[in-house]
Order: sequence, then structure tokens, then C-alpha cells
Amino acid sequence: MDMSAPTEATNTAARARAGWRTTLHEVIFEADTPAGKAFDVLLILSILISVVAVMLDSVGALRMAHGRLFGGIEWCFTLLFTVEYLLRLTCVERPLKYAVSFYGVVDLLAIVPTYLSLVLPGSHYLLVIRILRILRIFRILKLVPYLGEARLLMRALKASSRKIAVFLTTVLTLVVIFGSLMYVIEGEANGFTSIPRSIYWAIVTLTTVGYGDIAPRTGLGQALSSIVMILGYGIIAVPTGIVTVEMAHTFNPRVSTQACPVCSAEGHDADARHCKFCGAAL
Amino acid sequence: MDMSAPTEATNTAARARAGWRTTLHEVIFEADTPAGKAFDVLLILSILISVVAVMLDSVGALRMAHGRLFGGIEWCFTLLFTVEYLLRLTCVERPLKYAVSFYGVVDLLAIVPTYLSLVLPGSHYLLVIRILRILRIFRILKLVPYLGEARLLMRALKASSRKIAVFLTTVLTLVVIFGSLMYVIEGEANGFTSIPRSIYWAIVTLTTVGYGDIAPRTGLGQALSSIVMILGYGIIAVPTGIVTVEMAHTFNPRVSTQACPVCSAEGHDADARHCKFCGAAL
Amino acid sequence: MDMSAPTEATNTAARARAGWRTTLHEVIFEADTPAGKAFDVLLILSILISVVAVMLDSVGALRMAHGRLFGGIEWCFTLLFTVEYLLRLTCVERPLKYAVSFYGVVDLLAIVPTYLSLVLPGSHYLLVIRILRILRIFRILKLVPYLGEARLLMRALKASSRKIAVFLTTVLTLVVIFGSLMYVIEGEANGFTSIPRSIYWAIVTLTTVGYGDIAPRTGLGQALSSIVMILGYGIIAVPTGIVTVEMAHTFNPRVSTQACPVCSAEGHDADARHCKFCGAAL
Amino acid sequence: MDMSAPTEATNTAARARAGWRTTLHEVIFEADTPAGKAFDVLLILSILISVVAVMLDSVGALRMAHGRLFGGIEWCFTLLFTVEYLLRLTCVERPLKYAVSFYGVVDLLAIVPTYLSLVLPGSHYLLVIRILRILRIFRILKLVPYLGEARLLMRALKASSRKIAVFLTTVLTLVVIFGSLMYVIEGEANGFTSIPRSIYWAIVTLTTVGYGDIAPRTGLGQALSSIVMILGYGIIAVPTGIVTVEMAHTFNPRVSTQACPVCSAEGHDADARHCKFCGAAL
Repeated sequence: MDMSAPTEATNTAARARAGWRTTLHEVIFEADTPAGKAFDVLLILSILISVVAVMLDSVGALRMAHGRLFGGIEWCFTLLFTVEYLLRLTCVERPLKYAVSFYGVVDLLAIVPTYLSLVLPGSHYLLVIRILRILRIFRILKLVPYLGEARLLMRALKASSRKIAVFLTTVLTLVVIFGSLMYVIEGEANGFTSIPRSIYWAIVTLTTVGYGDIAPRTGLGQALSSIVMILGYGIIAVPTGIVTVEMAHTFNPRVSTQACPVCSAEGHDADARHCKFCGAAL
Repeated sequence: MDMSAPTEATNTAARARAGWRTTLHEVIFEADTPAGKAFDVLLILSILISVVAVMLDSVGALRMAHGRLFGGIEWCFTLLFTVEYLLRLTCVERPLKYAVSFYGVVDLLAIVPTYLSLVLPGSHYLLVIRILRILRIFRILKLVPYLGEARLLMRALKASSRKIAVFLTTVLTLVVIFGSLMYVIEGEANGFTSIPRSIYWAIVTLTTVGYGDIAPRTGLGQALSSIVMILGYGIIAVPTGIVTVEMAHTFNPRVSTQACPVCSAEGHDADARHCKFCGAAL
Repeated sequence: MDMSAPTEATNTAARARAGWRTTLHEVIFEADTPAGKAFDVLLILSILISVVAVMLDSVGALRMAHGRLFGGIEWCFTLLFTVEYLLRLTCVERPLKYAVSFYGVVDLLAIVPTYLSLVLPGSHYLLVIRILRILRIFRILKLVPYLGEARLLMRALKASSRKIAVFLTTVLTLVVIFGSLMYVIEGEANGFTSIPRSIYWAIVTLTTVGYGDIAPRTGLGQALSSIVMILGYGIIAVPTGIVTVEMAHTFNPRVSTQACPVCSAEGHDADARHCKFCGAAL
Repeated sequence: MDMSAPTEATNTAARARAGWRTTLHEVIFEADTPAGKAFDVLLILSILISVVAVMLDSVGALRMAHGRLFGGIEWCFTLLFTVEYLLRLTCVERPLKYAVSFYGVVDLLAIVPTYLSLVLPGSHYLLVIRILRILRIFRILKLVPYLGEARLLMRALKASSRKIAVFLTTVLTLVVIFGSLMYVIEGEANGFTSIPRSIYWAIVTLTTVGYGDIAPRTGLGQALSSIVMILGYGIIAVPTGIVTVEMAHTFNPRVSTQACPVCSAEGHDADARHCKFCGAAL
């Protein structure tokens, strides 16, 4: 409380110093005022329209018919987003911190491809990265509980990251070895034209995707790939087990380690205020 | 008990008012009387025969040979089901409530396509939606325990719906970005003819379906799709973990449904003898 | 104890009555004596050789070269197994009970196809059903612990059979509806030549197998099949969750519901003889 | 402590006897001294370069252009690794134990293919087995926690090995029977040219890989393969459940490693204060 008082004072001072920057900040960065909410809704709409325009532009027939329209929309939104990006840089307290934050980088990436396409034709299709800007939707629609769930999921995945790293290393070692074996067994005549391409085949097979663009034709090759398939079918159990156990742990911090002072019973819920066996206060 | 008495009285009065409607209601909506049971069994048989007829009608050779027969069966059952639908509307206490209920909508959808096919040829194949009417089978065959299991499963899925929504959003964002990247990398010459089609490819790959109708041909494209495959192979662990943990919680008979007589708090363990919040005996 | 005594007496009497049948029974049905063990090992070898012969016979080039040899092996083993089957029927106490038991049916199925092939050419390939006879290997090699594990797995699956039935019904309803929708959307020109075939496509897609022999070509069809794929990718979590939770329950009956008579603490292991908190005898 | 003293003495004596061998041993086998660390980093680099060279050599265009260079690199590293292997054999206390250990066998396999390629052209691609040598990286980079996680995973898998064996046996029996059935149903005209090839198809289908190089064409064949697919889709739940339950048990920190001082029983809960078998204080 004592700490927040001076901060509040500083804020008020800053607000007095730069009134318009504060107003701008409230409109652009916050969603509590009507103006801020309207701005965010408009922003989401702009993002959606521009992403859909980029997608439709990639369809040959539509590009033929409405190529100019799509180009116009693209430049229009890019200029708008550029102005917005500059305004965000201006009105934020610490511009550098925003620029290197997740949202700052995404905001920049969402305008770069259009300018890049002047030099590198075709790169403007990377504008779909703008879809990431839509993550702001969570803040606007008051979807905070969803963010909480996302954070829980991330925590469970982070807690099991070491085990997952061990699993991934094993899988990558397996595909390198099986891929090379298949290259030697099947040979270039059967589509296994190089070791990197055979490793690609091994990944396609082990993950049970199975395009069929490369498939073993010799008996020995089919026998070996049967082993790869059963292996891939079985070891999916490993990451599943890791993540499930970690989630069971992360989602369930309900049981406390406290013992009842009267009957010594344990296993009370974290929110319990009385012993569930003898009723004594914990 | 006090509440049900007047309802019973009302029912008796209603029964006196419209004797034939009550009898019809018992036959059509209930399965306890012999007549009701016979009606339900006949209904299930009709549904099965009509669905099989629609399916067989779609097989070219059979339509050539017996097209008229299938058409006759279809119109015959549609008229029967129309009469049944109207009778249901007539004999139910609150027709509107039935009409917008799940069964009411399915009953309507099960007759609409035939009439629609007079205007839109081919739409009568949608009659297979009639298969949903078969869900009534659960009530007839006294399969109530199965309905209980289904309700348990639904509760577990509903409890984890927020986490699943976060997961689905992540997956959809990933396929949009990876699809667009592949469109830029592989280009239209290799089958990635547009961004929507590339997103379709990304879904085919991430879900490990892998038709092979579109497959990367350049080295860079194969490297990127290897990442998509391993990602898809690995993140299947996330929904599995979510649902498993939620099911472990839902199926767990450890938590009783008892409320504290003093503070009304719920969520007590099955072995609790005192309320964990106020200490009162349960 | 009192119950087993007369049984033992009856057995002894039966043994006295038919000495040779008892000896035969010991050799054929039991694996404790050297003769019984030798018989079982010979049997397993015969089964393996005959199954491999059937498999090799199906390979065109080998049938050309050694067709007569394979035919000879097949008839030789079939006659041997026929004699064995008749001997089993003879020496067992209750022949009918054996004949309708799992092993009895398998033993019969293992000889029928050869005789059937005299009437129906090609049916002798069904002889591979003999592979099921190899299950006897568990008894011979004293693999009893493995049988115990198999029984645990079966119990877990049986305990969750109702939930799995509900899940299967849902999946089958889904593939019928999605298959019919795709038949209407894609039409016969794109390979979806009939509703049964479209249902086959829906199963191929929902289970993430994805042969690619039938694949959607229209935009709407690809959009719908994307939904089917994501559905199939996600709902695999349901049976996995069901089985995992059931296994956690079946494999872990370790915690008893007993409370300590002295300190009332609960959560003791099923094999505990003393309270783990106060040391009192349970 | 008393035990380690003489060992230390023996070590010192041995060190005195063969000073250069000890120094060599420290450099090659340990990573604590600067020289040892430098050696290990150089080794990892050599392995990576040589594996990449083998991979690139397999790409047709690159072999055309730089075949001699790749050949030179290969022989250069093979000679280096041969010298290193001989040095390892020389400086280790018990050469035979090293030679038959996991690392010893991998070290040998990493040089054999080059010499073998003098007799069997093409076998030098098996050099990618060298990638296994990279496992040493865990020791060098102080990745001990990762080794711990790997050991935990291995323990969980080993604990469930019996159940997995039962599952694998079931899967293999299923693919043999379903493969043979499909051979009889579809016949050689539809690509099911022999039983072994049909079994390969059954594995491709049951594991949901689904290349599509062999796919059923008759109605009956498609119906049967639908069953195989749904089976494969469903029974993936079994290994997943097995491994998850076993991991939940292995990762669980609830069971302490403490033995009872009176009766030596193990397996006590982490919160136990008395032995659950004899009641003695822990």
C-alpha cells in the first residue's frame, strides 16, 4: 500500500505532463473506456478483414478478377497498422520495452511483409502472421478465465519440458538411424533418393502421418517400416503419459500437507478450515 | 411431495379433458405399456429400413435396377413420419417446447429432405439424418445405464471445455501460419495452389491423417512439414491429458454430493464426518 | 477341503477305469511331465512351420517353384492336427465342453480350411487362424505372470466397456452423417460414388488413417473434411481417458478404506497391519 | 567410507604404475579437466561433421560435384576414430568390459562401415550410426538432470514391459489374421499379392499410418478394413493407459525409499511415521 502510493503520484504527475499521450494510451492500450473498447473492436475487425483479403488474394481465379482490389486493401491496412504501431511507440512509457515484447514484435511483423514485397515479390503472403494480433481478443472480450487456463496448460508443459526434450532427442535419433537404414535397403530406385529424404520418410512414418509419396517396395523395406510404424504407434504413449501425469499434478493442488492438531489425520483439502474427521479448527 | 400433489391433480384433470390425447401420448411418448413398446419397436424398424434404403439408393448399380422401389419406400416412410410428427405435436402438452427440443428438431429434419428434393434434386440423401432418431433406442431397450455413462462423459468434456477451446485456438492459429508458410515455400507448382488449400494441407498433416493428395516436394518444404508432423504427433498429448485428468476427477466417487446442514457448503470428501469449512457434523 | 476329498476320490476311480486315457490326457493337456512338455514343444513347432508354409505359399514366385512342397506340408500338418483333435476329444472327461471352449473351437478352425479348400479353392489361406493355437505357448513356457497381466488389462477394458460402447455409437453415428454429407457435397465425379463408400471415407479420415484413395477435391468438401479430421484428432482423447482412468483404478487397489482405531487416520495401504501415523495395530 | 579407502589406495597405486595411461584416461574418458573437456568438444564436433558429410554424400547432385571431398572426409574421420578407439582400449583398466559395453559397441560400429564399404559398396552410409556417439554430449554439457529424467522414463517403461508385451502380442496376432483375411477377400488383383504383403497392409492400417500404396477396393474389403481402422484407433488407448498409469506411479514422490529399522520392510509412504507392518517408529 505504501509502495503503490508514490507510484500513483508519479502516474498522476506523468498524466499531468502529457495529457494527450495518456488519453491515447487509454484508447489504444486499454479496453475499459468506451473509446478504448471501440478502438479494440475496430482493430480486430481490420485484422480479420486484412487476413481474409490476403488469403483470397492467393486463390488464382480471385487474384485474376480482383487483384487490384486486394492490393489496395493490403496497402490501406498496412498504412493504418503502421500509423497505429508508431502511435503505440509514442504513447507508451517505455517504447523499447514494448518494441521487444511479444505483442510489439507481432505488431511489427504484421506490417513488414508488405514493404518487403516491394523487393521480394510473394513475401506479402506472410501477412497472415497478423492473425497473431488477434490474441488481443482475449483481453477485450474479458476472456481472462481462458488466459488462466492457457497459463495452466503452459505451466504443465513447462514442468514436463525436460522429459519431453529427452523424448524428442530419442525420436530424432531414431528417425536418423531408420532413415539411413532404409536408404541402404530400398535404394534410390524406390524413391529413397538420399538420406535427408529418407529421414523425411521416417518422420512421415513414425508420426503415423503416412502420405504415401514415398513408400517401401522391397520385402525387407516393408518389414523394417513395419517396425517403425509399430514403434511410432506405441511411443505416442510416452509424451501422452508425461503430459497427463504433469497435468494431474498441475491442475490438482487441492490436498494440503497439514495434519489435524487434534486427531493427526492428514489429507485435508487446501481450502479446509476444519478437520473433516473430528471437526477441530486447522 | 407437497409440490407434486397439485401437478398430479392437474394431470388427472387434463386426462379427463382429453382422454384420446392422453392415450396417444402414452403410446407415442412412453414405452411402459405394451402398445407403447410395440410402437417404439415399429418406429426403430422403420427408421433402420428407411436409412438403409437411402444408402442403397446412392449405389449407382442398385439405383439403376431398383430406383423406383427405393423412391417408393422413401415417400412411404416420409409420409408415415410426417403423420407421426403431426400426432406428436397434437398430443403433447406444450407443442412448441417439443418442436424446439433436440428430438423435435431431429424428427422434423428427418422428413424435410424428401420434400426438399422436389425442388433441390439430390438433397434427399440428407435423409440419413434419420439415424439420429435411433437415439430413442436407449429409452426403449431400458439402456438407462448407458445414458448415465454418456452423461458422465459429457460432464467430463464440459468441465474441460475451456482448456479444449484454448487448445483448438492454438491449433487453428498454427495451421493458418504453417499453411501460409508452405504456400510461400512450395508455391503453386507443387500443388499448394492457394493459402486456403495450404491450410487444408496443414490440417491433414497436423492431425496425422496424411492423405498424400498434396505433399511437399522441395527440401525446405519437407523440413518444415517434418516440424508440423512432429508437432502434431506430440501435441495430441495435450487434449488427451486434459480429458484424462478431467475424467479422473469426474468418475472419482471420492467427492460426495452432500451439503453441510449448517453452512450449506458442498464438495466434501466421501469419508468426511465434519464440514471442512465450519466443523459441523455431516 | 471336505469338498475336494470326494472329487479326488472320483478322479482316482476314473484314473483306474481308463488308464490309457489318463496318460494321454497328461501328455496332451498338461505340461508338467517330460512327455507332456515334449508334446507341447513339438506342437508349437508344428504350428509355426505350418503357418509359415501357408504364408510362403501365398507368394506367387514361391508357389510357382515349390507349390507341391507347400501343398504336401499343408496336408501333412492338417492330418496330424486332425488326429490330435480327435485324441483330445477322446481323452477329455467332457468332450462337448472342450469342443465349445475357446481352445476347442480354435483347434477345429485350424483344420477345417484345408478340407474346405477341396470345395472352395483359396480358402486354405485361412489356415493362418492356426496362429491362435500358439496362445498355448503361455502355459508351456510358464508365462503365467503374463496371463495375469493380460487378465488385468481385460478387466480394465471390461470395466469401461459401457463408456466405450457409448463412444463407439457416437463415432458410428458421426461417420454415417459426415459420410452422407460428403456424398452430397463432393458427388460421384470426385470419387464419392455412393453413401457406403463415403462412410468408408469418413472412417478412413476420422481414425486419421488417411489412405488418400478417396480425397475431397472441392473447397467445401475440404472444409468439411478438415472438421472431421480435427474431430478425429481430438476425440481420440476420449477412449484414452476412459481406459487410463479405469486402468489407474484396476491396477491400484492399494489404499484401504480402514480408519485407525486409535488416531482415526485414514488412507492406509491395503497391506498395512499398523497405522502409519501412530503405530497402533489395525 | 571404510570400503572406499582401499579402493582409493588401489587407484593411487595404479596411477603410480602407469602414469601416461592415467593421464590419457583422464583426457579421453573424463570431462572434469580442461584437456578432457576440450577433447570431448572436439570429438562431438568431429562426429557432427562426419555424419553431415555422410548425409550430404547421399544426395546425388552433391556426390557428383564433391564426391572426392566427402570420401576424403569420411576416411579422415574413420582413421581418427580408429586411433581413438584403440587408445580407449589401451588406457582403460578392463578393455574387454569397455569393448562389450554400450559405448564400446557404438564406438566400434562407428568405424566398421567405412572398412566394410571396401568389400560391400554402399554400406558406408551406415556410418550415420555415429550419431549414437553423440549421447556422450549428455555427460560433457553437465546434462545430468536430463539423464535422470531419461532414467525415470526408462524405469516407467520397464515397469510396464509385461503389459506392453501382452499388448504387442495381441497386435501382432491381429495383423496376421486380418492380413490373411484381406488376402482372401481382396485377392492378388487388388494389390494384396501375398499374405506377408497383406500383413504389411494390416500394420499400415492398424497403426493409422495409411500410406495408401495398398488400399481395399471391394466393398467387403472396405468394410473389414473399417473394422481394422476403428480397432487401431481405439486400442491406442491401451498402451497409453498402461504407460500413463505406470508413470503416475514412478513419478509419484509419495513413496519414500526408507526401510523399516526393525523389519526392513520398504514401500512406506513419504508421510509415514511408523512402519505399516510392525508399527516401529521410522
